Amino acid sequence: MEELNKRGRVFNESDIPAMTKRVYARLQHALDVKELRSLFLPMLNELQSVEEHDPAKNEMRQQYCSNIVKPILCRAAVAWEVDKPFVIETIEVAPPKANEVRIKITHSSICRTDLGALTKPSIWTKFPIVLGHEAAGVVESIGEGVTTVKPGDHVIPVFLPQCKECYACKKNKTNLCDAYTKPEAKAAQNIPYTMRDGTTRFTCKGQPVYQFFATSTFSEYSVVPEIQVAKINPEAPLDKVCLIGCGIGTGYGSAVNTARVEKGSTCAVWGLGAVGLAAVMGCRNAGASRIIGIDTNPDKFPLAKKFGMTEGMNPNDYDKPIQEVLIDLTDGGLDHTLECIGNNNTMRAALESTRKGWGISVAVGVYWHDISTHAFQLLSGRTWTGALYGDWKSRDDVPKLVESYMKKEILVDEFITHRMTLDKINEAFDLLKAGEW
Amino acid sequence: MEELNKRGRVFNESDIPAMTKRVYARLQHALDVKELRSLFLPMLNELQSVEEHDPAKNEMRQQYCSNIVKPILCRAAVAWEVDKPFVIETIEVAPPKANEVRIKITHSSICRTDLGALTKPSIWTKFPIVLGHEAAGVVESIGEGVTTVKPGDHVIPVFLPQCKECYACKKNKTNLCDAYTKPEAKAAQNIPYTMRDGTTRFTCKGQPVYQFFATSTFSEYSVVPEIQVAKINPEAPLDKVCLIGCGIGTGYGSAVNTARVEKGSTCAVWGLGAVGLAAVMGCRNAGASRIIGIDTNPDKFPLAKKFGMTEGMNPNDYDKPIQEVLIDLTDGGLDHTLECIGNNNTMRAALESTRKGWGISVAVGVYWHDISTHAFQLLSGRTWTGALYGDWKSRDDVPKLVESYMKKEILVDEFITHRMTLDKINEAFDLLKAGEW
Repeated sequence: MEELNKRGRVFNESDIPAMTKRVYARLQHALDVKELRSLFLPMLNELQSVEEHDPAKNEMRQQYCSNIVKPILCRAAVAWEVDKPFVIETIEVAPPKANEVRIKITHSSICRTDLGALTKPSIWTKFPIVLGHEAAGVVESIGEGVTTVKPGDHVIPVFLPQCKECYACKKNKTNLCDAYTKPEAKAAQNIPYTMRDGTTRFTCKGQPVYQFFATSTFSEYSVVPEIQVAKINPEAPLDKVCLIGCGIGTGYGSAVNTARVEKGSTCAVWGLGAVGLAAVMGCRNAGASRIIGIDTNPDKFPLAKKFGMTEGMNPNDYDKPIQEVLIDLTDGGLDHTLECIGNNNTMRAALESTRKGWGISVAVGVYWHDISTHAFQLLSGRTWTGALYGDWKSRDDVPKLVESYMKKEILVDEFITHRMTLDKINEAFDLLKAGEW
Repeated sequence: MEELNKRGRVFNESDIPAMTKRVYARLQHALDVKELRSLFLPMLNELQSVEEHDPAKNEMRQQYCSNIVKPILCRAAVAWEVDKPFVIETIEVAPPKANEVRIKITHSSICRTDLGALTKPSIWTKFPIVLGHEAAGVVESIGEGVTTVKPGDHVIPVFLPQCKECYACKKNKTNLCDAYTKPEAKAAQNIPYTMRDGTTRFTCKGQPVYQFFATSTFSEYSVVPEIQVAKINPEAPLDKVCLIGCGIGTGYGSAVNTARVEKGSTCAVWGLGAVGLAAVMGCRNAGASRIIGIDTNPDKFPLAKKFGMTEGMNPNDYDKPIQEVLIDLTDGGLDHTLECIGNNNTMRAALESTRKGWGISVAVGVYWHDISTHAFQLLSGRTWTGALYGDWKSRDDVPKLVESYMKKEILVDEFITHRMTLDKINEAFDLLKAGEW
């Protein structure tokens, strides 16, 4: 508690031990004096929140908080133009508005979706922008009306919202909340590269900087809608569980939820990157008896075996299409296949490798073009489906996935290949492009 | 019993009333003296079968039957060449071999699959051939080893076998029995246009005539594998329930089994031919609250309403793709769609009209080309699947469908638009081509 004492804090630790523990946890993550300073405001928020369950008092507190929460200056990797390197800039992060949460991002991982967003113009981006959507951190401050997290909470921001109030959330058949920023939505405020009110919380050199999936985790601080913030076990290591917010959840859930892998079934996974390895792990945890990993880089096979792969195949080793090889090898086809690359040829191969009658193939890899197959592949009883984020509901399920990690039911540490600081982000993306992540 | 008396039959009706009733039913269907004569052999078989549950006696009976069962000369519509009119010929129908059943086909309906088989060369046909696969009739004689039907039984021959012994039948997740004649099968005997032993039971003018799906119902008699013969309620009118063997079963099952239509859900059906109307009926029986029928011929709408359609739409009435119209109309998309045409554009439209998150689209119409969609249609949680014969198991489920008809749970009579004799088959196909069926 040395830092606290230096600043002459007067509260008695034994009176409010839970809060103090969280404050201390945050201080451990603080990097410098400027950051320490920025932590004082949430501490004040927290003190105010003690025992304030009275609605009138709560409203007063909210007003008080929004008055005292100030903009934060911090570092972020700004993408100024399409397909140009990131530039580390000092940006101003505005206070969270109503139903928004400002998060100190302690760790962020990088994903091919970020690379795609950086290198190609899309409806999802407007430059300059702060990318990043797979991270973990600590709530720094909250906007008016936020009730499910409070400053100090450990959280994983997720690109998929879960409002729990829309038609889709109430139907309970999908994780695709209607609030998910989508281009086809009629509501004018659903602009994918801003917050829901059509504005951004980032400013740099006097101009607005846009946000990505309302997560924008390549920044020391970010503002995220409350409905995209999953509160997790504070004991979980943020440098590890940050991976759960996209890649691991996507691959793992695609196997256990979307493909509904069954005990004793035969499975194949195309692409042994992070998502593919997580899909292999999902097949294994669901009890599959045979899990074939398919990748043109056989160097990935030893690691994949740790996740449960029973055999690796390189499609370049065969003279005929891999679907024909697999149909022969499995005497009619696989029960479940998962495509974790994002390509028409591999999505088609994955579908056509399943068994007629009940084979199910899940498109997992993000792909922005048409895919095709012969109609009889479906007519003969195969199912082609897909999901985003492995059908997990962000706020309900991410905390459970973190618990699964804590109980050692799912591997996470093994996905980590490099650890780099924010200022090395361009090198990190070079590694991603080279296929080393 | 007039016909029987003419021939001086001596058995006492009251002694074996069930058998007599079946014989009488058969005689009612007999067209002329030649046919009446051919009915005597099965009657003998039937007499032999009374109380023969003793294995040794049964074996004797089998040998007896195969000795006395002779070839039958009858009329059939022979397709001598691709895309040429049928010719009504007298063909010789050989006795059933082991595990085969010779059926007097009392009624056959025609299906677009027959039209496709007639007009285009395919792996499923070899000319000359007797087409037809949607029919009903009476067992005339049985080959060695046949235990599940006996002469006199009323049956529906089905293009899909159900052997109850293969991996697929035992897995119980599909109706696609491994014995289904399929080109990708390794077994040499799986030639689609013959019986399973690679030979045909039809001869005309000294040359073999091939069989279609081992059903070949455009003949007064046909030989069908026992595993493709569904024994039905002898009270059911054969001139009606013959439709259950393909079109009605396909459309109805695609809704209730494959699309898993739920109570209160929203549905759309493309194509209001027999299969589409049956799909509409399936949606209605499953409790759908809204059933949109889509057809470029609005003259079909009044009939479709009898089957449960709540509204009809002609895609030509709109300036934008029907999927966009439907997404708007249903505030996000339909729960279930069924394509009962067989075309890439409509299959794509049907998928893309479903709701993200849980929409399921079933390909029902037979189509022998590639189909395509944008990958994100699947990634956003839609499911594209299909089935043959509506996921019904031929021998287990066809008798149940007949019972559903007898209980007035499903409509059948309303599907019948024309009644024609075998010699008018070319006119019937002209009507089919003109879209009047």
